[in-house]
Amino acid sequence: MLYKNTLRIISLGGFGHVTKNMFVYETERDIIIVDCGVGFPEEEMLGVDLVIPDVSYLMPKKDKIRAIFLTHGHDDHIGALPYILPQLGTRLPVFAPKWAKALVEDKLSEFGIVPNIEEISEGKRVNVGDFSVEFVKVTHSIPDTLHLVIKTPVGLFYHAPDFKLDLRPVMGAPANQELIREIGNRGVVCMLSDSLRAESPGFTPPEARLEEVFEQEIAGCRGKFIVTTMSSNLSRFKQAIDVSLRHNRRIVLVGRSVEKNIEIATKLKYISYPQDTFVSKKLINKYPPHTLTLLVAGSQGQLGSAMDRLVGGEIEQIKIKPGDKVVFSTDYIPGSETAMQNMIDNIYRLGADVAYSDVRSDIHVSGHGSQGDLSKLMELIRPKYLMPIGGNYRHLIAYKKLAIKNGFKDDQVLIKDNGQIAVFTEKGYLPTKEKVDVGQVMVDALGVGDVGNVVLRDRKILSEEGMVVAVLPLDQNTLQLDDEPEIVSRGFVYIKENLELLAETKRGIVKILQEPAGGKFDRRIIREKVQEYLEKFFFDKTGRRPMILVVLVEV
Amino acid sequence: MLYKNTLRIISLGGFGHVTKNMFVYETERDIIIVDCGVGFPEEEMLGVDLVIPDVSYLMPKKDKIRAIFLTHGHDDHIGALPYILPQLGTRLPVFAPKWAKALVEDKLSEFGIVPNIEEISEGKRVNVGDFSVEFVKVTHSIPDTLHLVIKTPVGLFYHAPDFKLDLRPVMGAPANQELIREIGNRGVVCMLSDSLRAESPGFTPPEARLEEVFEQEIAGCRGKFIVTTMSSNLSRFKQAIDVSLRHNRRIVLVGRSVEKNIEIATKLKYISYPQDTFVSKKLINKYPPHTLTLLVAGSQGQLGSAMDRLVGGEIEQIKIKPGDKVVFSTDYIPGSETAMQNMIDNIYRLGADVAYSDVRSDIHVSGHGSQGDLSKLMELIRPKYLMPIGGNYRHLIAYKKLAIKNGFKDDQVLIKDNGQIAVFTEKGYLPTKEKVDVGQVMVDALGVGDVGNVVLRDRKILSEEGMVVAVLPLDQNTLQLDDEPEIVSRGFVYIKENLELLAETKRGIVKILQEPAGGKFDRRIIREKVQEYLEKFFFDKTGRRPMILVVLVEV
Repeated sequence: MLYKNTLRIISLGGFGHVTKNMFVYETERDIIIVDCGVGFPEEEMLGVDLVIPDVSYLMPKKDKIRAIFLTHGHDDHIGALPYILPQLGTRLPVFAPKWAKALVEDKLSEFGIVPNIEEISEGKRVNVGDFSVEFVKVTHSIPDTLHLVIKTPVGLFYHAPDFKLDLRPVMGAPANQELIREIGNRGVVCMLSDSLRAESPGFTPPEARLEEVFEQEIAGCRGKFIVTTMSSNLSRFKQAIDVSLRHNRRIVLVGRSVEKNIEIATKLKYISYPQDTFVSKKLINKYPPHTLTLLVAGSQGQLGSAMDRLVGGEIEQIKIKPGDKVVFSTDYIPGSETAMQNMIDNIYRLGADVAYSDVRSDIHVSGHGSQGDLSKLMELIRPKYLMPIGGNYRHLIAYKKLAIKNGFKDDQVLIKDNGQIAVFTEKGYLPTKEKVDVGQVMVDALGVGDVGNVVLRDRKILSEEGMVVAVLPLDQNTLQLDDEPEIVSRGFVYIKENLELLAETKRGIVKILQEPAGGKFDRRIIREKVQEYLEKFFFDKTGRRPMILVVLVEV
Repeated sequence: MLYKNTLRIISLGGFGHVTKNMFVYETERDIIIVDCGVGFPEEEMLGVDLVIPDVSYLMPKKDKIRAIFLTHGHDDHIGALPYILPQLGTRLPVFAPKWAKALVEDKLSEFGIVPNIEEISEGKRVNVGDFSVEFVKVTHSIPDTLHLVIKTPVGLFYHAPDFKLDLRPVMGAPANQELIREIGNRGVVCMLSDSLRAESPGFTPPEARLEEVFEQEIAGCRGKFIVTTMSSNLSRFKQAIDVSLRHNRRIVLVGRSVEKNIEIATKLKYISYPQDTFVSKKLINKYPPHTLTLLVAGSQGQLGSAMDRLVGGEIEQIKIKPGDKVVFSTDYIPGSETAMQNMIDNIYRLGADVAYSDVRSDIHVSGHGSQGDLSKLMELIRPKYLMPIGGNYRHLIAYKKLAIKNGFKDDQVLIKDNGQIAVFTEKGYLPTKEKVDVGQVMVDALGVGDVGNVVLRDRKILSEEGMVVAVLPLDQNTLQLDDEPEIVSRGFVYIKENLELLAETKRGIVKILQEPAGGKFDRRIIREKVQEYLEKFFFDKTGRRPMILVVLVEV
């Protein structure tokens, strides 16, 4: 139930998760939403493309929702809009910083949605219902990242997702720490803070450091200089372009996400290069290799990405050759390590050189603040409560340990997991056991939410053991086999080399159905007997437990 | 073809792989084998338990095989023996250092195999056919690790798999560098060397460093002290036990592999503790938590491992509670990162504290030598040729770069990939394009080699898209549908919520088979038409491409 003059903060993507960011700030009368991102399927979510926040909590409260605020343009903060905006109403006001706004408009247009979107920036203020929201420009691995200062009926909240305090950003100015301190002076009830790198000591190095790294790597590169990084990291690409131009190289964009980002950045004047800076990949063979730099999408080795196709030799005009150098300006993302490493092996096999984080650790800097950055923000804001977000559970704990080292008390750091909610009154934090049921909504091709646990469990069995279908043609009167059973299998054993197993299976079924000790089996018993027989038979023969489907056809 | 007075070196596990180590040294008359290890299935090898070397090259040459030498007891060096020894002859002489010998005997006894195995150690010499083999004791993350000095008709070869030059080993003495230098003085043609950590600068820290780490972590632990590491790392466990005893804790072994290693180590007197050092896990609740240390198997978060069951609350006597501390004395192994990290999150959720490599990087030291160790061995042996082994292709390249930095010439470092072989004559290395067909032999439950690419491809489709079986009862004369088709699906969509899709599918099949423009379809055409229709229909409706099986039943 909702108390008068309370604020409830709910994470619909689940607290304790790095991605699918979506936060609800709710008073008795009004709701605002912060971010609306996608998550990436976990290993056991076979065949699933994306995971999105579960908005079932919001559905009965649609009338209360006043606006969605987006903090920056990363997919785990904006990518679920095409799926969720239609559920909440496509004309719901969306507020986004300039770069995110451009990306959102582009993405939604693919889905035929025209959003009601307005640009926000530091210095502006948006009043919606019970809330009044201001913005603080911070630095991150994508342009135009904001923190939100949310005035609520129970006090001021500072919403600080993904950021680092980069004192030398490549694009734009550093965060205005005086402004942040001034906000802290107003008295902040609770700061929700990024915690992803709370395990790492010191400050995250400045993005500008990469220019020197690119300089060192491009020197002595006799062939094509090939750079891959997160396609949304415009500052990184800008540095690669600047270094390349100094070395008299032109730029080739490879991969749709890179092309799109550079195109939008150019249109919105984030970058501005002479027209002849860029060379179409169709014309690449008109230029000597040492005059070209390639910016390529797919730095994590994603299947089907531009890097994957390039390394696989599947891009017609562009081949990796001895003399080329490939720079992976990225860290391993958990789960993608093997794919990236296989790619590095294969580039070496093509005779090119490779630079990656195992051979030089400074080849990437994170967009997330380390302990130094996180502590600095705590010090500037000095809130009554801290609530780590944007990390796995261990990161939330690491953040809490850091806060306690910085002088916060145990009960000032609120650790929320999954469906838990945080309730605040005018007196401060109100402990409650209240939970919200936040599930995982999986997107598989056109289906949103239609793949659930039953389907995943079946896919898991199918993936490891394969399946066998036994079709039994039965006389519809006697329910005796009318013909020999038909056995079809996939992913189980290679049937062409196991014809004897197949024959034995059929004989076994015939035998087991011939034993009616007086009277006939009914359909259920036939099905069960055959199922049971096949399970045991295959397990004895192969040690495997394929999925078995028994189909009765009555004739 | 085999030249007179040549030596061929072949990796049956494939050069450019870290695991499934198996090397063949072959002269005109004789073959010896070095190591016989398993590999771990790659991500796309769905349902596969193990990968073993492909010995088809050896099968026609069985009469030439004189012996198998094992360098140490890690599974990727001995684990394939139960599968491969029966193929080569179970009485083939096997030579192994003491610790590996004990593990091999134990493992083979499970398969009912009694090997013809003899212990080897530094100072011994084994003469087999054209070969004469001596042994050098080195340090690694398992006791009794040897390098081989192989005298062949074309000169001396130094076979140096997994090692580091630990000057302060916890068990046994450091490698005798004077002996190694003396071997170098004899003139080594080629050294095959570990390359796994060739990307890492400096020397790998000594194993003994862990004692101080355990001391720091155990201090202030109010509850159970729980340590997990590679179950074969006896030195690591010894240090954890020694530290625990100093803190008046008894030891509980959790997990079969840990129990077995400690049992063998005790029996063979590698370790020797008073009887009351160990407490059976059944009696654990008789002791206050702060008087216990648990050594637990499953440090990589393997499904079903002791750690997995412990964290999941599935071990009846032992629960993780607030006050306990869990130490993951291990690095992430590629591919297991997500499983380990989920486990760490869940331990925090239970209220215990966790130490792991992200929060303290010195919590694990590798058993493999870094650039310092590798360079030192190059300097001691000073061979004519170097051939990196035991690494992925990028590690081989990193080793080559290191060797060149150390003054070796480009053509002195032999990089071999997969099926390539190295041929040496009395004059040295003989470049050849000769290859051996080394495949991947997959073990899936009882089946060795029966799962191949067709089965894996099917499992892949099944895992991501599921499957649909359409059973068509046809009149055997007219080949017209005799009854409505039966549709069964698994892993595709949740059929109970998609009854309309099911009904539409059936109507579609009926319709498509009703259109014979004069004359009847034959079986092949019926099958193809239905297959094609279903593929298109399901893709239009769901965006997915399930595996479709059409079964005709003629009645």
